Amino acid sequence: MKVSIGPKTMALPTPTWLVGTYDAAGKPNIMTIAWGGICCSKPPCLTVSLRSATYSHGSIMARRAFTVSIPAESQAAKADYCGIVSGRDHDKFAACGFTAVKSELVDAPYVAECPLVIECKVIHIVEPGLHTMFVGEIVDVKVDEAALRDGKPDPLAVKPIVYAPEDRCYYGLGANLGQAFSIGKELK
Amino acid sequence: MKVSIGPKTMALPTPTWLVGTYDAAGKPNIMTIAWGGICCSKPPCLTVSLRSATYSHGSIMARRAFTVSIPAESQAAKADYCGIVSGRDHDKFAACGFTAVKSELVDAPYVAECPLVIECKVIHIVEPGLHTMFVGEIVDVKVDEAALRDGKPDPLAVKPIVYAPEDRCYYGLGANLGQAFSIGKELK
Repeated sequence: MKVSIGPKTMALPTPTWLVGTYDAAGKPNIMTIAWGGICCSKPPCLTVSLRSATYSHGSIMARRAFTVSIPAESQAAKADYCGIVSGRDHDKFAACGFTAVKSELVDAPYVAECPLVIECKVIHIVEPGLHTMFVGEIVDVKVDEAALRDGKPDPLAVKPIVYAPEDRCYYGLGANLGQAFSIGKELK
Repeated sequence: MKVSIGPKTMALPTPTWLVGTYDAAGKPNIMTIAWGGICCSKPPCLTVSLRSATYSHGSIMARRAFTVSIPAESQAAKADYCGIVSGRDHDKFAACGFTAVKSELVDAPYVAECPLVIECKVIHIVEPGLHTMFVGEIVDVKVDEAALRDGKPDPLAVKPIVYAPEDRCYYGLGANLGQAFSIGKELK
């Protein structure tokens, strides 16, 4: 029996990502978002959505670039903090004890302490309503050496954070359920 | 020490969603995607990205509607199957033992057996490259009564599947890491 809960921003899983930008003065800033996802394979692209009222929004509009730093489970409280306060009047890197690294590829900083970072240049801007959706072309992905397994990011080492809308809690990653393009073959 | 792995479609977490559509003959179809996410709060919207070569792509273009059925952990093999074969020559609902329910709100079917379903009408179409990104306005969310806690979807009851690109494995949801807009207050 299904119950209607109305037209809400509810989907699972949604990510917990830190969007990195430089403001007009060149100060590095990060903002936590859950509205985003990969949107294209060639070129590799992802979207991040921000309200125009946010400080980071203006920075992305001006620099046409951003990074996504993916925090680990152990950084959940810091990630939450970066979604509570504004870069207008807080130095979030300093408050979190994070190190801002200037990307060599795009005009934005990333978080040295996050296990996985993605560098993006903006190629489309879409305005569906309250949020602006920035489509970023992924120009590089960088991973902590310790989080690699056979040259690929190991999700159980990265330990990304899942955000759950409505419930408004963070979750870790659970058990490996099996290999994609493989465990479904039994149904063919 | 970070290692560059190049411009890849790598981000964590990405979702495992079943996109439901009707084809030209009215046959219900579902396709598994991981390229998608919420993109706006007002109106509530999400994106799903599909290659134009897929059968579902033509169905969404024609009907301007789709659903997202969120499979549970126990449905991982079925979800994988729905990403392996095409609705052009397979009845995926039948193969999975899934029941297609006609949405009363949009011109698309959803999966009765999935714990959480989202009904969308297409309001924007963006073409970043190989994939077409469909922006769907969420017109309703329906949840299994058993997966509700205090009137909201309980992620640990829904048990959504996380997909990990590159690694190409599915994962379950892990432990609750804390309340959003709360656990970060200690850093203020």
